[in-house]
Amino acid sequence: MFRINENFLKLQSGYLFPEIGRRVQAYAAANPEAPIIRMGIGDVTQPLPAACIAAMHEAVDELANSTTFRGYGPEQGYAFLREAIAEHDYHARKVNIQADEIFVSDGSKCDCGNILDILGAGNRIAICDPVYPVYVDTNVMAGNTGKVHDGGRYGNLVYLEMREENNFEPPLPAEPVDVIYLCYPNNPTGMVASRESLRRWVDYALEHRSLILFDAAYEAYISDPELPRSIFEIEGAERVAIEFRSFSKTAGFTGVRCAFTVVPKALDVTSSDGTTVSLHSLWHRRHTTKFNGASYPVQRGAAAIYSTEGRQQIRDLIQGYMRNAATIREGLAEAGFRCFGGVHAPYVWLKTPDGMSSWEFFDDLLSRCHVVGTPGSGFGAAGEGYFRLSAFNSHTNTVQAVERIMSAYALKS
Amino acid sequence: MFRINENFLKLQSGYLFPEIGRRVQAYAAANPEAPIIRMGIGDVTQPLPAACIAAMHEAVDELANSTTFRGYGPEQGYAFLREAIAEHDYHARKVNIQADEIFVSDGSKCDCGNILDILGAGNRIAICDPVYPVYVDTNVMAGNTGKVHDGGRYGNLVYLEMREENNFEPPLPAEPVDVIYLCYPNNPTGMVASRESLRRWVDYALEHRSLILFDAAYEAYISDPELPRSIFEIEGAERVAIEFRSFSKTAGFTGVRCAFTVVPKALDVTSSDGTTVSLHSLWHRRHTTKFNGASYPVQRGAAAIYSTEGRQQIRDLIQGYMRNAATIREGLAEAGFRCFGGVHAPYVWLKTPDGMSSWEFFDDLLSRCHVVGTPGSGFGAAGEGYFRLSAFNSHTNTVQAVERIMSAYALKS
Repeated sequence: MFRINENFLKLQSGYLFPEIGRRVQAYAAANPEAPIIRMGIGDVTQPLPAACIAAMHEAVDELANSTTFRGYGPEQGYAFLREAIAEHDYHARKVNIQADEIFVSDGSKCDCGNILDILGAGNRIAICDPVYPVYVDTNVMAGNTGKVHDGGRYGNLVYLEMREENNFEPPLPAEPVDVIYLCYPNNPTGMVASRESLRRWVDYALEHRSLILFDAAYEAYISDPELPRSIFEIEGAERVAIEFRSFSKTAGFTGVRCAFTVVPKALDVTSSDGTTVSLHSLWHRRHTTKFNGASYPVQRGAAAIYSTEGRQQIRDLIQGYMRNAATIREGLAEAGFRCFGGVHAPYVWLKTPDGMSSWEFFDDLLSRCHVVGTPGSGFGAAGEGYFRLSAFNSHTNTVQAVERIMSAYALKS
Repeated sequence: MFRINENFLKLQSGYLFPEIGRRVQAYAAANPEAPIIRMGIGDVTQPLPAACIAAMHEAVDELANSTTFRGYGPEQGYAFLREAIAEHDYHARKVNIQADEIFVSDGSKCDCGNILDILGAGNRIAICDPVYPVYVDTNVMAGNTGKVHDGGRYGNLVYLEMREENNFEPPLPAEPVDVIYLCYPNNPTGMVASRESLRRWVDYALEHRSLILFDAAYEAYISDPELPRSIFEIEGAERVAIEFRSFSKTAGFTGVRCAFTVVPKALDVTSSDGTTVSLHSLWHRRHTTKFNGASYPVQRGAAAIYSTEGRQQIRDLIQGYMRNAATIREGLAEAGFRCFGGVHAPYVWLKTPDGMSSWEFFDDLLSRCHVVGTPGSGFGAAGEGYFRLSAFNSHTNTVQAVERIMSAYALKS
C-alpha cells in the first residue's frame, strides 16, 4: 500500500480567511443594505499599468504568428526580464546581483514554499510571530515541525515575537537556529527594517552559518531612499541569504502571476561528506526540473514595468495605495487608536481598543462600520489584540471607511 | 549550520538536451551552410489557435480597467475553466469527473514533480524505461531512490522495460510496488495503451493498493475514438489514480503555461493510525498553500479551446502534426527502418540501423542528413539502440527531413 506524507495531518485547518468570509457572508445576509467595505485581504484593486497591458497584447500577437511564435522558454526566465531586474532593482542601488542569479517564477508564494525542496531534514526554523501563514504551513508539510500545541503553535519551530514592547522588531533567537524567515516591509505589521536591523541578522547568520529567507514582496512601498530595499544591500548577505520578490504588489500582478527569487552564487554550504555545495546550483536544478518557466506574455508584461513609462506608472500606482495608507493611519490615530506601520507598507497594524480580542474587534468593526479587516490573531499568537487594515482599495472607499471608524470610535473623547 | 537536501547530490547531470545542443552547435559551427532541421525536442512550433488569441486579448483588456480588473483568483482555477474541462474532456466521454476534482496549474511538469509532496517516504516507485526523465529526477530529489549505479539506474527504483520484444508494453512489476508512473500516449515511444492494457494496471493497483500517476499530456493525439483517453475510462481507476493533463501539446501552450491535474474524491488511503485520508484533500491543501493559481489571461485562453471554433482549431492543429508523424513513419518504413508509435502520438520511435548505438545514429543522422533527433538512450537504459523523431515541425521541414533520410539510408536495398 502506498503511503502519504503524514506531516500534512499535523496542519490545522486554513482558518483565517475562510472564517472571515463566513462571518462577512452571515452579516451581509442579515443586513443586505449594509455598504460593506473590504480592507481585509491583501489583494490589489487597481488596473495593470498601461505599459504592461501594451506589452502583453504585443506578446499575445507574437504567439499568433508562426514566424514570431515561442514555445518553451528558459525555465529560469527570459534574459530580457532577468537583465532588466538586475539593472533596475539591483545595479541601480549598487547591489552586485547578476542576471543569472535571478530565477523568474509564477509567484513568491510558490517560491517561498518550494525553497524547502533544497533544504534538508533537521533544520531548526525560526519564524516571526505574527507572520505570513505560508512560511509555517510549508514547514509543517516538509516535516520541519512537531505537532501543534494549544494556542496553535507547532513544536520545533522557534517563534520570534514582534510586539509593541519591542517595536515589532523580532529578537535574535535565544537558541541557535538554522533557517530564519524575515519579511520587510512586513506583512502583517507594515513595519520596515532599518539597515542596522538587517545588519544584525546578517551578522547572526554569518556567525551561526544560518540561512536567511528574505521576503521583499513589498519593497516597492519603501519611500525613504536610505532604507534598504534588498537584504543584499547589507555586506555579506550574499553568503547567507535568498531573496524573494514579486510583481504582485509592485505592479498589480496578483492575478497575472510573476515573481522572482535571487540565489547568489556566493551562497554555499558544507555537505555531510565535507564538500562545498552551491545553493544556486541546487535551486537551478530544482527550478529547471520541477518548473517550466513563467508564461511568455506575462514575462513581457513584467519587463514593461522597467521601461520609462512603466516605472512612472508603478510609482503612481503605489503612491495611490500609500495615500490610502496615510488616510488610514492618520484617521485612526486621530480617533485615538494606537497604529503602526503604513509608512513604507500598504498595511496598517493597530491595537484593538478597550482590550478587545482580535475577533471581537472584527465583529465590532463589521457591525458598527461595515468595514472588514483581518484579525491579528490569524497571523499568530502574538498577533492577538491587534488588527490589520489594508490600503489596497480605491481612495473613495478608504476615505469612507476611515470616516465611519472615526465617528464610531472616538477613543480619545 | 543549515543543512541541504543531500538527495540532490545523487542526481546525474542533466545530460540529454544540453549534450544534443552541444553537438548540434559544434556541427553547425564546422558546417555553417548545413540546413539543419530540428526534430529533437518535443516543443510545438505552430501559432496558438485564433480562439485562444482572442480570449487572451480580451482578458488582458479586462485587467486594464478597474471595473473588470481581477486580482487573486481561486488557486484551483476559475470555475469557467474547470467546468469546461469536466464537460468536454470527461462528461462527453461518459467519465464521471466533476469540476471540483480538477486542479488547474501552470504545467504538467510542475504537477508531476509536486505530487510527491503529498506522498510519504518509503514508497516503492515503478517507472517505465525508456521514460520522461522528470519522473526519475523528482523521485531522486524526494529521497525515494538510492544512489545511481553503472548504466545510470538508481537504486530502489523499479524499472519496467519497454522493448520491441514486449511491443513496448511495460510488464507488471515482479515485486510489489506502491506508486506507478504511466504515460499514454507514450513519450518517448509514441505508443498508445489499449483499454485492456490500462485495465490490467488498474486491477494491479486495486489489488496492491498502489497509486497510478497517469500522464495523459498527449491524449489529444489519439485518433481512434475507441481508445481510452483517460485512465478514468477504466472502472475503479477513480480509487487508484491521479491524472495529469496539459494544454501544451493540445493547443500549443508550451510557452503560455496551463495544465491540470485530476484527483478524484474517491481516492483515499489508510494512514498509519488507521484513519482514512482523502488524497483530494491533501492535494487541495498543497495546491492552495504552495500555488497561487494560473495566470488569468492564460486560463481564459485555455477555456477558449473548448468553444466551437476553438475545438475545430485544435483539431486542425493536431491533424497538421499528425500528418507530419505519418510522413515520418511511412517514409522511414519505406527506407527500411523499424518504426513504432506515431499513430496516436506526435513521436516516432525507431530502431537504429546496423546496430548503431543511439548516439552513433545521432551523429550519423546529423552529418548525413542535417537532421536532429533524440537518442533513445537519453530516456533510459532500455532506450539504447532506439531513436525518437518528433512531428512538431512545419510540414515542409518534415517532408524535407524525411526525403533526406530516405535517400541517405536505403536500408532495404
